[in-house]
Amino acid sequence: MDFLGDSYLIGNGAGMEIFGEVGGLPVVDPHNHANVGELAANVNYSDPWRLFAATDHYVWEVLRKRSVGEEFIAGGAPPFEKWMRMAGVFPEIAGNPVYEWIHLDLRRYLGIAEVLGPETGRMIWDKASAVLAQESSRPLALLERIGVEVMCSTDDPVDVLDEHVCVNALAGRLLVRPTWRPDKAMNIHLPAWESYIASLGTRFNASIDSLPSLIQILRDSHDYFAERGCKASDHGVDKPYCGCAAESDAALVFDKAFSGKQISDTECGIFKSYILGEMAEMDAEKGWVFQLHIGAIRDVRASLHDSLGPDVGGDVSDHHIDILGPLRGFLNRFDDRLKVVLYCLEPGHQATLATLARAFGSKVALGSAWWLCDNPIGMRRQLEYIGSVDLFANFAGMVSDSRKLLSYGSRFEMFRRVLSDVLGGMVERGQMPLWVATKLAERMCYFGPKEFFGI
Amino acid sequence: MDFLGDSYLIGNGAGMEIFGEVGGLPVVDPHNHANVGELAANVNYSDPWRLFAATDHYVWEVLRKRSVGEEFIAGGAPPFEKWMRMAGVFPEIAGNPVYEWIHLDLRRYLGIAEVLGPETGRMIWDKASAVLAQESSRPLALLERIGVEVMCSTDDPVDVLDEHVCVNALAGRLLVRPTWRPDKAMNIHLPAWESYIASLGTRFNASIDSLPSLIQILRDSHDYFAERGCKASDHGVDKPYCGCAAESDAALVFDKAFSGKQISDTECGIFKSYILGEMAEMDAEKGWVFQLHIGAIRDVRASLHDSLGPDVGGDVSDHHIDILGPLRGFLNRFDDRLKVVLYCLEPGHQATLATLARAFGSKVALGSAWWLCDNPIGMRRQLEYIGSVDLFANFAGMVSDSRKLLSYGSRFEMFRRVLSDVLGGMVERGQMPLWVATKLAERMCYFGPKEFFGI
Amino acid sequence: MDFLGDSYLIGNGAGMEIFGEVGGLPVVDPHNHANVGELAANVNYSDPWRLFAATDHYVWEVLRKRSVGEEFIAGGAPPFEKWMRMAGVFPEIAGNPVYEWIHLDLRRYLGIAEVLGPETGRMIWDKASAVLAQESSRPLALLERIGVEVMCSTDDPVDVLDEHVCVNALAGRLLVRPTWRPDKAMNIHLPAWESYIASLGTRFNASIDSLPSLIQILRDSHDYFAERGCKASDHGVDKPYCGCAAESDAALVFDKAFSGKQISDTECGIFKSYILGEMAEMDAEKGWVFQLHIGAIRDVRASLHDSLGPDVGGDVSDHHIDILGPLRGFLNRFDDRLKVVLYCLEPGHQATLATLARAFGSKVALGSAWWLCDNPIGMRRQLEYIGSVDLFANFAGMVSDSRKLLSYGSRFEMFRRVLSDVLGGMVERGQMPLWVATKLAERMCYFGPKEFFGI
Repeated sequence: MDFLGDSYLIGNGAGMEIFGEVGGLPVVDPHNHANVGELAANVNYSDPWRLFAATDHYVWEVLRKRSVGEEFIAGGAPPFEKWMRMAGVFPEIAGNPVYEWIHLDLRRYLGIAEVLGPETGRMIWDKASAVLAQESSRPLALLERIGVEVMCSTDDPVDVLDEHVCVNALAGRLLVRPTWRPDKAMNIHLPAWESYIASLGTRFNASIDSLPSLIQILRDSHDYFAERGCKASDHGVDKPYCGCAAESDAALVFDKAFSGKQISDTECGIFKSYILGEMAEMDAEKGWVFQLHIGAIRDVRASLHDSLGPDVGGDVSDHHIDILGPLRGFLNRFDDRLKVVLYCLEPGHQATLATLARAFGSKVALGSAWWLCDNPIGMRRQLEYIGSVDLFANFAGMVSDSRKLLSYGSRFEMFRRVLSDVLGGMVERGQMPLWVATKLAERMCYFGPKEFFGI
Repeated sequence: MDFLGDSYLIGNGAGMEIFGEVGGLPVVDPHNHANVGELAANVNYSDPWRLFAATDHYVWEVLRKRSVGEEFIAGGAPPFEKWMRMAGVFPEIAGNPVYEWIHLDLRRYLGIAEVLGPETGRMIWDKASAVLAQESSRPLALLERIGVEVMCSTDDPVDVLDEHVCVNALAGRLLVRPTWRPDKAMNIHLPAWESYIASLGTRFNASIDSLPSLIQILRDSHDYFAERGCKASDHGVDKPYCGCAAESDAALVFDKAFSGKQISDTECGIFKSYILGEMAEMDAEKGWVFQLHIGAIRDVRASLHDSLGPDVGGDVSDHHIDILGPLRGFLNRFDDRLKVVLYCLEPGHQATLATLARAFGSKVALGSAWWLCDNPIGMRRQLEYIGSVDLFANFAGMVSDSRKLLSYGSRFEMFRRVLSDVLGGMVERGQMPLWVATKLAERMCYFGPKEFFGI
Repeated sequence: MDFLGDSYLIGNGAGMEIFGEVGGLPVVDPHNHANVGELAANVNYSDPWRLFAATDHYVWEVLRKRSVGEEFIAGGAPPFEKWMRMAGVFPEIAGNPVYEWIHLDLRRYLGIAEVLGPETGRMIWDKASAVLAQESSRPLALLERIGVEVMCSTDDPVDVLDEHVCVNALAGRLLVRPTWRPDKAMNIHLPAWESYIASLGTRFNASIDSLPSLIQILRDSHDYFAERGCKASDHGVDKPYCGCAAESDAALVFDKAFSGKQISDTECGIFKSYILGEMAEMDAEKGWVFQLHIGAIRDVRASLHDSLGPDVGGDVSDHHIDILGPLRGFLNRFDDRLKVVLYCLEPGHQATLATLARAFGSKVALGSAWWLCDNPIGMRRQLEYIGSVDLFANFAGMVSDSRKLLSYGSRFEMFRRVLSDVLGGMVERGQMPLWVATKLAERMCYFGPKEFFGI
């Protein structure tokens, strides 16, 4: 019953033994939203709000639910005032993983064991500020303390990856690898697409005025990323695409959009399908992992998006979309020659995705419980199901999907504890011997993802 | 292992402590199907069948599954014979919540601890009959014993609410508030719609012959309900509507239906969308709570509906409907200016609804597990999920949705025990301190709904 | 914590008591894919691979996931080499039920308690080979040891059922009953349909050249199966059909396909709907059980299907199909005059199916967790849900759906243990008395299915 104590999230003895083996393994994090510039600068955080909440829309959303004013969330109030508003409602967000993550971060990495609330907010601010001012609290030192062996940031094809070089030089090893995420090139329906295409041309000293020229520049970027240690692409899609539209059809859509005309949903789908297929070909050639994040319906709350832009909250999942149709085409096209990770946001898609992963053999893996499922119950339900239908051993591994640095620690700890509890429970129920479960856990927490991603 | 004993539904020590704090809180029930006339008359129940089964299609459905003849369910057999048929199959319905509710009601409110079955049926009938004949078993006395502080009945816009006045006078306080449920005005596709519209006009001494005149009378009714203490509307829809159809389009549909012509599904949807939007505006103006019961497909078993009419059983849920499309439009239209409760019938809709509630901030709340999910496992799965994705603290609260008086007690007890077990489990797993869980439970069981509904 | 020990899958004392009563009940298995010829021949198995893996695509799929080459799965490698490849990866498939089934079979029926892995593979092969060579390991002796009282094989309308006669003569009782599975007659869209129709005519010495003549021959086959002890039909459909298309429309589709022309999806649906309805009429007349296996999308991985044919793996479930629309029509057409079992593959369909079963009374039953749900967590989630919404007492019973003989034992043991744990958990939480739970378990494990199927 100890809050975040030794047996946090683990309810059986076998689980404790398993966690004893995997809890301290290095962190291999194939997908996150690391601020690589922050790592390269490696200066102390200005204040606790900056580190814990300023960049994390998971925190923002729960504050909004408790009626905290936007001024104290993503608005202009001073950090300390924001922190105190958060402290004021913090006991009311218990149950949501944000409550556990922030307390874990305070305890495990800053050594502050108090429970955050209106009475303790100022004291914790003061203590945290003092710790954050120390040299041992600089970003790279924190990553060291967390035990991060390697992490893959999320980058755009236009990005120059010099900061990655810088961080790795500082770290003295290949700590941060880039991930190629070309969503903007694919999102032909958005107003910003045309200017993005122009910037992509500028970046590679070429002009893009046709579908083939776009593909060529994407390929140049793909090659460039490979030189900088990239091992995976990542794609965020509202729904899957089969990757098998004809080039000629997609070229017509490109030309239409490029000339400033409005395109239909069907045309948009043709373009996305084609380009996703081409990008998967590039991954297949290089042996990269193709990561697909399926089903996030973003920026649904218009008032938020209108005032603050994208990636600030207001996102949902939708059970009512066709997963099987397009993925069936995609996975057959690339059968046995492309490593794929399927990330599931919507619990209702889990069975379709897990049975597809099962059906398509060793190269298609299920990713960790994503975003709105990235919490103890979401992980537990996912692991129980996919371990029964697919195989635990083929799990693609935990990713932090992090919006802030400390998450690398707390999110991986949460995952490893839930996994230990799930496997430990199976041991206790006589479903597998302890040594088998322990080896599975080690594979899932460390060796498996390292091998699958080649990182 | 004690049947319905002290630790009923609670498997951990922290849960027992939490239930110790919330088990005895007064009942605040924002949604039920109270027979207000029965409360106003306040006479003793004629017999146990009357109280336990005569008005409750939850009971009827399980008897049908066990092949009890319709004559002994909703048919003409004498109450005692019906009771004995029910007793004859009662051990076979274990697992279904009806088994627990009826046994809880017998134990907690009538003091009868025997287990109902073919051998005990007559004895329990006799004991229950004796208890029900006492003055302390009159409806209002039973409500007192259950600890009902306030309850909201479900009423039609045509209803005259004098019985509410009468009950509250008898009770000496505002015990029963009405809820405005205008489904009949919206159901333009049903044969009874036109005569209903006529009765609505008669009720308010006006003639309804156009969409504006219908809206005006609905507004008159809305105002009347407000004067009688109403704080919420309620809407039962097979699927959501976005509430944003144009008035001119809806007026054409009204005129067509009003002139006796057949309307299409699309036209029906336009009308419903428009009128739901108008009704939500009325709620927003008065600060009422807009309750949406989504996804019940009613009267699916034709033989039942043909012989007995509506609301007698034969209802199902359907995973395959679009929730996000229409609700996205609705919630954006009323963003931050309308209190909304979303009730979920189909487990497969839970994630879409919970992420929508999360996205739209403090005014959009998730309602308790509804109807076919209103049982220990349905509640548990819902609470575990929504507490992780949305916030426990924003839960709209338990409602009895009751078809009979004793349900106010047993359904609330079941909920409070499941909630205590879920939160207690989180405490035992180190996810939150006990005092935080206890405060959350108190908020969810009593203070939160009181404040949100303003009752 | 004993691997597959006494308390395997059972975590509470009441569950142990319940399992003590039901664990040893005879096996009644209303649906499997028994190789009746193998039973009739009743000769010893050539080797352990033959018995454990050679006919079981559940095993094949997990080997593929662990990158075992197809040569060592369904290919031409010698059985011992295949066995050793399986042993080599066996610890990595833990969590998947195949791991438990094969270990259960080794322990319970061959007396081999070692854990299969690369080091133990050869020793287990040797031990198993020795046991399999004994007279007591012949198929019928194994069925005796498992305790199979009666089992229903899956047969095609063209099948001559002499092997059934032979097996039952050997067994000295009605051990194996046929099941009428006319999928091939229904699958008008497949290239093989026309030749199948011809073979059906040949089988019954008639020519089929019109829809009425097809129906007549199907009726002859139905009658023939009845004479051989058949009590049920079975139908595998990607999605449900309402069974209410007009004969005249279906006849047009028949004529078109029969003349070698391509038919559309809509036409195919009309034909399937009509013929399914006619076959259900035949079942209703004879009091047979109509079994519907809903939602398996078969042979999705093209490379497997192209090289190995159907029923070798590569099958998935699809959440995104309409269940309610067609089933609503079907169940109303046959309301109260046809015994129906609904088997659910996709967890997302469970609520729709369970509420339909609830709505349509005593003759519509839910079948056991199917295929990709046929594992401890799939069973547990299904039982918890359907027991709360429908009734445990109306459950249609466990079926092995077996692809190999030993499955009759291990799959039934797994089910009975999970059921005992679920019901025992409800007893421990005070939801029903132990004696009530025990009677329910006995009904669900043995008496209920015997009575419902009339076998």
